[in-house]
Amino acid sequence: MATRAGKASRLGEFALIESVFAPLAKDYPLAFGLKDDAAFIRPRAGRDLVVTKDVLVAGVHFFADDPADLVARKALRVNLSDLAAKGAKPIGYLLGAVLPKTLDLKWLKRFAKGLAEDQAEFDISLIGGDTVSTPGPLTLSITAFGDVPRGAGLRRTGAREGDDLYVSGTIGDAALGLAVQTGDARCPKKALREVLLDRYQVPQPRLSLGAGLLKHASACLDVSDGLAADAGHICETSGLGAEIALGDIPFSDAARFMIDRSPGLLNRLLTGGDDYELLFTAAPGRARSIRVLSRRTGVPVTHIGKMVAGSDVRVLTGSGRTIAIERAGYTHF
Amino acid sequence: MATRAGKASRLGEFALIESVFAPLAKDYPLAFGLKDDAAFIRPRAGRDLVVTKDVLVAGVHFFADDPADLVARKALRVNLSDLAAKGAKPIGYLLGAVLPKTLDLKWLKRFAKGLAEDQAEFDISLIGGDTVSTPGPLTLSITAFGDVPRGAGLRRTGAREGDDLYVSGTIGDAALGLAVQTGDARCPKKALREVLLDRYQVPQPRLSLGAGLLKHASACLDVSDGLAADAGHICETSGLGAEIALGDIPFSDAARFMIDRSPGLLNRLLTGGDDYELLFTAAPGRARSIRVLSRRTGVPVTHIGKMVAGSDVRVLTGSGRTIAIERAGYTHF
Repeated sequence: MATRAGKASRLGEFALIESVFAPLAKDYPLAFGLKDDAAFIRPRAGRDLVVTKDVLVAGVHFFADDPADLVARKALRVNLSDLAAKGAKPIGYLLGAVLPKTLDLKWLKRFAKGLAEDQAEFDISLIGGDTVSTPGPLTLSITAFGDVPRGAGLRRTGAREGDDLYVSGTIGDAALGLAVQTGDARCPKKALREVLLDRYQVPQPRLSLGAGLLKHASACLDVSDGLAADAGHICETSGLGAEIALGDIPFSDAARFMIDRSPGLLNRLLTGGDDYELLFTAAPGRARSIRVLSRRTGVPVTHIGKMVAGSDVRVLTGSGRTIAIERAGYTHF
Repeated sequence: MATRAGKASRLGEFALIESVFAPLAKDYPLAFGLKDDAAFIRPRAGRDLVVTKDVLVAGVHFFADDPADLVARKALRVNLSDLAAKGAKPIGYLLGAVLPKTLDLKWLKRFAKGLAEDQAEFDISLIGGDTVSTPGPLTLSITAFGDVPRGAGLRRTGAREGDDLYVSGTIGDAALGLAVQTGDARCPKKALREVLLDRYQVPQPRLSLGAGLLKHASACLDVSDGLAADAGHICETSGLGAEIALGDIPFSDAARFMIDRSPGLLNRLLTGGDDYELLFTAAPGRARSIRVLSRRTGVPVTHIGKMVAGSDVRVLTGSGRTIAIERAGYTHF
């Protein structure tokens, strides 16, 4: 696509695609070296294709001065996290690169290097996309493809009353990382500060865990809106409530250090976004299988609560008190 | 996905999706009412999936004050045109809506109305996407899906020496429409002016023609960079040259009227973008079948030249003179 108004950068676009982006598609024959109008995906028999799109805008979803390779990895990984939440195996992705004219080639090369590293790590290839210029901020639109056995893909809905509620990894680090990066919170220990920043900037898509959960989970999503709000999404789509034991929610050492210093941060940990951990439900009989899966994949999984009748997400303290969660998109309790 | 920085509009996002976008996905069960992290596509046996992405930026690819329904239809249609160029049957699309905070709901509703009209016309459904806010211009990233019989999808490459070169519809109207809209050219006849503007604003994806060409064309693309440049793309990927007879290139009555008044516009007709007509090659023995296909689909198809040895696109006048094409991205001759 092109209009005369967009054409000034058009020749630049072809060169850019050939030098920066085409190498990322070299292992996917049906991308045709990005020289065609579209790419093909040849579905495996008996599989459903999973498609997801996440858009990131500089100044909104990442900082304009974040390192280019980290921006690339985050943009790809938030999409991979959606695939993980479906239990999908990654296939490929399309990149819509909306670039300010002032963006320099060095930045783009580092950006492509970040993509290349993650492509190798997660066995996924660039297969197409579009590169256009904008008078506005750098914007990245990624569409990722994966596949699952036909009809078996995980959903947000499907939890049953009495199911256990689990979460992978630790919760709230990314929200603290963001707070540290903006100066909204201070972490005097450099090593812990770097852990938090890293968790905000480079999410870990839980693909192996998600694939393993195809056999066990009744509902699943990735925590992007915050634990409280995302538990609410499972409740809403499943027609249930959830009880979460505050003392069971997994926090990292860095997060514990921060809460000890500023107890007021607890709310932020439960409602901050960007964790990209898997939050899922499973029948009580699956508990042992889930422990085995956690060990096999090396991804920590913690039992944090139960699905119950009702529609609210209730976070219970050790003394049985329900604590109020602010700004969770959920204020029923 | 979400960050705290993006969250101010987050609650608004959910309401927006539910009221404006979810109705567009109601006929596609595996979109789950846009309430899940991803959508599924269940491939038909023996088919390849075709995936394409085109991004449009306000002020670059359309005018910020273009009517919302026309912006929607153009954004969808440029993607449908890519599917047409592959011979694909549309399945669904993802919408990445990057919206300025100042955008009002009325605009968005009219935008959704345009999408709904084209969904009905082209038998395609919204199946997912992402809605985010931006401090920059309205940006639309659409990923469209279609399918073709396995291995049969049309490509830019594949033309053979001696193949005929054809184009659908008429060439250059969109470039003139843009020139008229910007005031770069004047068209004193209102009816003709409206034809040209319409051709710029609302492209006609040639889906039925593309599907029919699966059996006949050796190479195919949609004219988005201008006839000369896009003929060059077929030449480049097929390792050939092309000879186009200027007198055979199909111009509309409106375009002929404009050229008669300003012969200097001819260059713009041959190099302007946004025609979204199919440019394709076929063996000489296919000529009759292609005429039949044109009649059956109601899409005019014109024979405009031949594929020849070499690498240049040459446009020949009646007297056998080669005319120079400026700004085609191709200046070899």
